[in-house]
Amino acid sequence: MDFDAAVPHPPIHHHWVITVSCPDQPGIVHAVSGAIVAARGNITESQQFSSADTGRFFIRLQVESLADRSEFEAALAPVIEHYGMAAHIDTVGRPLRTLVLASTAAHCVNDLLFRQRAGQLPVHIPLVLSNHSTLRDLVGFHGVPFESLPVTDAASKAAFEERVLRAVDEHDIELVVLARYMQILTPELCERLEGMAINIHHSFLPGFKGANPYKQAHARGVKLIGATAHFVTSDLDEGPIIEQNVVRVDHSRSPGELVAIGQDEESRTLSQAVKWFAERRVLQDGARTIIFR
Amino acid sequence: MDFDAAVPHPPIHHHWVITVSCPDQPGIVHAVSGAIVAARGNITESQQFSSADTGRFFIRLQVESLADRSEFEAALAPVIEHYGMAAHIDTVGRPLRTLVLASTAAHCVNDLLFRQRAGQLPVHIPLVLSNHSTLRDLVGFHGVPFESLPVTDAASKAAFEERVLRAVDEHDIELVVLARYMQILTPELCERLEGMAINIHHSFLPGFKGANPYKQAHARGVKLIGATAHFVTSDLDEGPIIEQNVVRVDHSRSPGELVAIGQDEESRTLSQAVKWFAERRVLQDGARTIIFR
Amino acid sequence: MDFDAAVPHPPIHHHWVITVSCPDQPGIVHAVSGAIVAARGNITESQQFSSADTGRFFIRLQVESLADRSEFEAALAPVIEHYGMAAHIDTVGRPLRTLVLASTAAHCVNDLLFRQRAGQLPVHIPLVLSNHSTLRDLVGFHGVPFESLPVTDAASKAAFEERVLRAVDEHDIELVVLARYMQILTPELCERLEGMAINIHHSFLPGFKGANPYKQAHARGVKLIGATAHFVTSDLDEGPIIEQNVVRVDHSRSPGELVAIGQDEESRTLSQAVKWFAERRVLQDGARTIIFR
Amino acid sequence: MDFDAAVPHPPIHHHWVITVSCPDQPGIVHAVSGAIVAARGNITESQQFSSADTGRFFIRLQVESLADRSEFEAALAPVIEHYGMAAHIDTVGRPLRTLVLASTAAHCVNDLLFRQRAGQLPVHIPLVLSNHSTLRDLVGFHGVPFESLPVTDAASKAAFEERVLRAVDEHDIELVVLARYMQILTPELCERLEGMAINIHHSFLPGFKGANPYKQAHARGVKLIGATAHFVTSDLDEGPIIEQNVVRVDHSRSPGELVAIGQDEESRTLSQAVKWFAERRVLQDGARTIIFR
Repeated sequence: MDFDAAVPHPPIHHHWVITVSCPDQPGIVHAVSGAIVAARGNITESQQFSSADTGRFFIRLQVESLADRSEFEAALAPVIEHYGMAAHIDTVGRPLRTLVLASTAAHCVNDLLFRQRAGQLPVHIPLVLSNHSTLRDLVGFHGVPFESLPVTDAASKAAFEERVLRAVDEHDIELVVLARYMQILTPELCERLEGMAINIHHSFLPGFKGANPYKQAHARGVKLIGATAHFVTSDLDEGPIIEQNVVRVDHSRSPGELVAIGQDEESRTLSQAVKWFAERRVLQDGARTIIFR
Repeated sequence: MDFDAAVPHPPIHHHWVITVSCPDQPGIVHAVSGAIVAARGNITESQQFSSADTGRFFIRLQVESLADRSEFEAALAPVIEHYGMAAHIDTVGRPLRTLVLASTAAHCVNDLLFRQRAGQLPVHIPLVLSNHSTLRDLVGFHGVPFESLPVTDAASKAAFEERVLRAVDEHDIELVVLARYMQILTPELCERLEGMAINIHHSFLPGFKGANPYKQAHARGVKLIGATAHFVTSDLDEGPIIEQNVVRVDHSRSPGELVAIGQDEESRTLSQAVKWFAERRVLQDGARTIIFR
Repeated sequence: MDFDAAVPHPPIHHHWVITVSCPDQPGIVHAVSGAIVAARGNITESQQFSSADTGRFFIRLQVESLADRSEFEAALAPVIEHYGMAAHIDTVGRPLRTLVLASTAAHCVNDLLFRQRAGQLPVHIPLVLSNHSTLRDLVGFHGVPFESLPVTDAASKAAFEERVLRAVDEHDIELVVLARYMQILTPELCERLEGMAINIHHSFLPGFKGANPYKQAHARGVKLIGATAHFVTSDLDEGPIIEQNVVRVDHSRSPGELVAIGQDEESRTLSQAVKWFAERRVLQDGARTIIFR
Repeated sequence: MDFDAAVPHPPIHHHWVITVSCPDQPGIVHAVSGAIVAARGNITESQQFSSADTGRFFIRLQVESLADRSEFEAALAPVIEHYGMAAHIDTVGRPLRTLVLASTAAHCVNDLLFRQRAGQLPVHIPLVLSNHSTLRDLVGFHGVPFESLPVTDAASKAAFEERVLRAVDEHDIELVVLARYMQILTPELCERLEGMAINIHHSFLPGFKGANPYKQAHARGVKLIGATAHFVTSDLDEGPIIEQNVVRVDHSRSPGELVAIGQDEESRTLSQAVKWFAERRVLQDGARTIIFR
């Protein structure tokens, strides 16, 4: 923070978030931290994990640095190359360009838009796309463009998915959120969005996969119901889990009441997963996720 | 508690717990409460439930009454008959005669025995029966008889189950607790113990049925692990659920650590289920349970 | 549900919720259930509690009955009189006329209005009154009238409170909700609203009373932060507690982050308390509340 | 784990845990990781925190290294000196020499001893010291020496505390656990044990300090009760908080029932705090703790 009186302008502090994964071996932390010192940086937050399952090493760093992006990237480049790292460098807090898909349920969409507006969620949502028009007013109130395209058969489904891909291109989308979008994506779209699409499932997976999970939960008489945010894969309800929450219920709850009770868990679970993803805290390790909270 | 000096003995207050189920219809509460008034009783605790699934009505009452058992039963008998009730009358707090089956894991057995001893669990455990001798000292310390019978093949398994049935008869057992007993009961034994045997499964059912649930949970990367206490039925891990708990875990936990973390949930979930059962708070409604907490 | 073919119209089933408190004594349940039978009613939900602290008996019943209000009240009147009951009879699900007071924070107001709109909260909110204009658009979006009156000194505070009382009269208000209204009410207003005003405090009371609870929580290094919904009394932050929730935090959270994390707990805790109150599930027993969940 | 056939002995892998705190400045991580590389070590676990409150930097590392203790310490010494670090180097998993103080309550003591025995708690408890003889059998069963010394007046209190200090010396104690020890320590003893004594308080601090917290909690009608493990300081119930847990209760619970319900939270909260302390995961930052979970 000190600087010479002769310098008329204070130095600019950049805040970088770096995520890295590579095959595990000794010396990685030292190499990365050395590059950061070289880039006149100070590590302000750090989490690491060595996966016994895959033999890979993962680290997430937040760095305060005097170096601008090009200087910072240049300093890290040799380390990244030497260790064969998959690395990502970004500005801390930059809003992630996020496309939201919805159907008729309002709770998750409202929660996402409300938090975006309140500055609690580092995302920029340029569009909500729905297969119904139900949420037009709600989305409009939050100042976000809304489009609806009915999905009733294979052709309209293809048109909807084409619109999704076009929106991804147009807005340079980094994250697609299925906020209770009630259509199954085609395997092609799942593949195209791999690692960048998050779904909220209204059960505590792997229990109650498929349709009507609350009805299943009622029939089975579970004492806790929950919600699961997970990456979208072509294997339905089987993508890597990002976050889960449960809430206690008892025998007196009808399937309809379970729906209402569960919605709070869905909203907060999805928003939490989106927040972590946008903050680059979610990394994939095979079929599992690493969450650097 | 006050009584006239001329009365040589204070009236004896009996504390009864009554559980009833019958086809639902109007007037049941009035009829039951009328019988209780006739038996000079006062309702101190009451919970009821009408099942939309089965059309049955369930009620649990605690009553303070001047009537002894025969007078009390006589007062209720006409109501029970008229409504075709399945009814049970018992003394509040009477320890339930409970047989514990175990293998090598100590945590659930220790928790049950410690709570029995501390007066927190209204059970009387006359015997712990195990297919290993591991827990002999622990059980002995708590002053409870212990027997072990190895189960290595069909013949020894039959001998073990025969010993279970003999123990049930000898001690007039009302509840059998499988405290991490790691053998699958034969369908015959399951049937014989129907509605009176509780198992603890080390996952949040219906997720991760079968063997090695913690290993499955690790592989699937769930963010919460749990335990489920349920009635034993011949349909493995599918019996009516009595209680469930979960605890948060993260990516850094190995399968072995999940085992250690999960044990606390197993112990408290099983002890809770046993406590409710012993207090006559657990009723069955088809494949679901009603818990009158 | 069956009716004679000669009857042209099916009988109307009324759904009543009855709450009663009176000095405890034997026979109350029988007397009440008898009156209900007389009013051609069937008890569908029932909870009772005898307070050892105050010697009072409390019961909440939901009843399906063929009797209209006047017949139903007439049937219960003798019982109410005989036992000296404080009793309330209402229609199940009737929206409670609710006035919301707010300042600048949006999260609790948004949650209440969103749930009202979604049919999850049985309230009718005819007005949101604030000492700031910040929330005008949000409230308007939900279709609810909004007024703001600045509070800057004793005179403007008196004007605001006068407006509150006028609104209570105009709209026949049954519940006043302080949804992060950041002014202390005068003792006179507290007294006037006794038993019908709910406040949300942003800490786990009785810890961190008064101003800046999250800053206090940070300084003290607590591992869980929370929110408390309680009745408003002239004794600040000391009114009977209705509901509390907590969430885990760790050392890395700044006071500002605690604020953001805590807001979710505030919203859901307040909405839960309002829901229970509106459903007549909240009764007062001295300085404590009874919640018939 | 692979090694050349010509090498007669495999290299020994030491597992070190290092905790460090020092004034924050750039380059610390790089300097420490460089020393670790020099000591032929690989970082397997790492957590760090920069305190905005005190300006201090904290880091905890687990390292797998070919260096033995003297080589490892020699490699780190210059870094420790240069940055003015308070540093601690230990073997991962080494049992901490722990003295337990108790009174009559069994639950916390039983939980600690059971977990020690089950290998879940990296402590070695050479002695349980109590002001009552109640727990003699329980402690003996777990194979741990037990002494009781009545505390009835100032003189006997002084004798007890003298015995504590003597035991600390005799057994080279690193941690003193007050497992529901119901006497207030003198300020002198508090000072002597500063930073190495953990107490369990049976409330969710800072609510309900002092005596009879469950009675206070009942009177106040809280909806969650809890337990707090904290460092012992001469300022009663005000020491830095290490861990807290809560459990939901309702109006129907008597003070006595709250005691029983709360005991589970006390046991697991205390054992958790002891585990983290023994694993060197608890660091003090002024009046707050840092928990490197």
